[in-house]
Amino acid sequence: MGRQVTLEDVAAEAHVSKSSVSNVIRNHPNVRESMRQRVNAAIDKLGYRPQAIGQNLVSGRTGLVSLAIPNFAQPYFAELARAAVAAADDAGMRLIVQQTDNLLEREREAADSWNLGSADGLIFSPSVIEDEEIEVRRGRAPLVLLGERSKLSSVDRVGIDSVAISHTATKHLLDQGRSRLVMIGDKTFGDPFVVSEREAGFHQALEEAGLREAGPVGAVRDWTREDGARAVDELLDAGFGFDGVFCANDLLALGALSALRRHGLRVPEDVAVIGIDDIEDGRFASPTLSTMFIDKEWMAREAVRLLAKQLADPDSIPEQLSVPFHLLARESTALYR
Amino acid sequence: MGRQVTLEDVAAEAHVSKSSVSNVIRNHPNVRESMRQRVNAAIDKLGYRPQAIGQNLVSGRTGLVSLAIPNFAQPYFAELARAAVAAADDAGMRLIVQQTDNLLEREREAADSWNLGSADGLIFSPSVIEDEEIEVRRGRAPLVLLGERSKLSSVDRVGIDSVAISHTATKHLLDQGRSRLVMIGDKTFGDPFVVSEREAGFHQALEEAGLREAGPVGAVRDWTREDGARAVDELLDAGFGFDGVFCANDLLALGALSALRRHGLRVPEDVAVIGIDDIEDGRFASPTLSTMFIDKEWMAREAVRLLAKQLADPDSIPEQLSVPFHLLARESTALYR
Repeated sequence: MGRQVTLEDVAAEAHVSKSSVSNVIRNHPNVRESMRQRVNAAIDKLGYRPQAIGQNLVSGRTGLVSLAIPNFAQPYFAELARAAVAAADDAGMRLIVQQTDNLLEREREAADSWNLGSADGLIFSPSVIEDEEIEVRRGRAPLVLLGERSKLSSVDRVGIDSVAISHTATKHLLDQGRSRLVMIGDKTFGDPFVVSEREAGFHQALEEAGLREAGPVGAVRDWTREDGARAVDELLDAGFGFDGVFCANDLLALGALSALRRHGLRVPEDVAVIGIDDIEDGRFASPTLSTMFIDKEWMAREAVRLLAKQLADPDSIPEQLSVPFHLLARESTALYR
Repeated sequence: MGRQVTLEDVAAEAHVSKSSVSNVIRNHPNVRESMRQRVNAAIDKLGYRPQAIGQNLVSGRTGLVSLAIPNFAQPYFAELARAAVAAADDAGMRLIVQQTDNLLEREREAADSWNLGSADGLIFSPSVIEDEEIEVRRGRAPLVLLGERSKLSSVDRVGIDSVAISHTATKHLLDQGRSRLVMIGDKTFGDPFVVSEREAGFHQALEEAGLREAGPVGAVRDWTREDGARAVDELLDAGFGFDGVFCANDLLALGALSALRRHGLRVPEDVAVIGIDDIEDGRFASPTLSTMFIDKEWMAREAVRLLAKQLADPDSIPEQLSVPFHLLARESTALYR
């Protein structure tokens, strides 16, 4: 493939300074159009390809951060990714995103330090891979973990206290006078871990109230609208009567709203429904969806801060943070008298 | 930074063959755990970093494709990105995604061939950048354009015929007996181009029916639920009476549904509402949302195919394709007698 073309080669070819080439590459706003064209022509002629814009020639860093999440099309992750782009921007970094699809093979690929390519570090929301494997695969690569799957204490981590969040949501249903509760979200595929915490919080709140669940935890393949609707169908078809539904996330809850309506049940009059995440969708649903707000922007900001901290000092002490959350009571759980 | 560590160095250090190292790096399923550990230890010791998994050592390609879209959190783009990941998978490629936020500077960065880093090519959905600039910046980098913004004929492109799509949507409202129509989606920020095509289709259908719009096109900052709701508020506050709303996308339509409900107007009895995109959200809305289906999976598959074609033959003739679409009539436009 011949000798690697360098910035110097481009500068020589264009008869300009190295910093002029650098300015063109970085899209510096003050670059004159004539300069841009001249440098571009040289770059094009020589086939020069810097690894990434914002490449810091002194530090050897690229300013690029990789974010690995299970699924772009899940609004929770889409909103989280959006917040991470904004946070990275503010920190002078550029973010690229990869989707792991809750597949072990993909999560391994994401965790492997050698897959970072030109990126300086990884922000990773794992869903099936084990902590030990994450640790081995990351090697010495800068890494920040997101979410509730990982409990690694050797790595910077922005976690989610799912037990507490689910407890608060369930208690809200009880406080609204609901006493025959079901939960939807037992995953038959992918990660059994997350739902176990959410179930624990649900059962904890029921026990404190001296109650039992009105039916088995509604099984779903994934936390989608479609699966939430199907779980309601199955619970109703099996003859379980309930006046409150706690869903492991908002998408399930939106699916549940749709299925309850199909069955002629009124929300909140007949059945109250609450989810987790506060995705935008729930704010515009009919009825509007009660949910647990999880501060995704805070999460993204802290993750970027922690990554920057590691880049500045690889020996910095890992921090384990827990994302702020609170109840958002909307129409779907309104007290009905 | 010293001499670059090679695959050979790792093989020598671990006393294994180069192909064994390659298998470990690619997460080949048949690699024994002892081999994996041995190679990982050598990689870790030497600090070896291949650019990306799947790196084709013969062709100099990485198997990596970059997808640049305006916004992860817009369900249309989230679903498109998800489809593109699946299509890239099937083609043996790995996809990374970057968000451009409808910002000219970011779209320039995305279009610049030197920003591809280790990626073999770019699939780009532009929203504000001019075609001429895309062409100059891409240089000789493999590029496939998505969406309706670009009309470049020198590049492979999977386009959207917004005029025809909007015409069909508007005609559906008219066919349902609605005669006082408004449109929502005139962008006050970002790309004025897309909406002009959608407006053209709207007005074309009205003219054919001998009608005029019942109010000015509802202005929005962006195509979000929030902006759709606000546009309905403004049109109603300004005293425009209407029995049909054509929205430039589904998010606007979902926001419109929410606002109409707030104003005590029934959908579809008082006002029929239709959007464009067929995002999952609309299928579970109450009422379910009528919309124009745009085949995002086809779009993603064709984009990946076209990129692979360019990689196989840089001199292949550019193709311009138009995405298949059709009307999905649901509850929000049901005929009301």
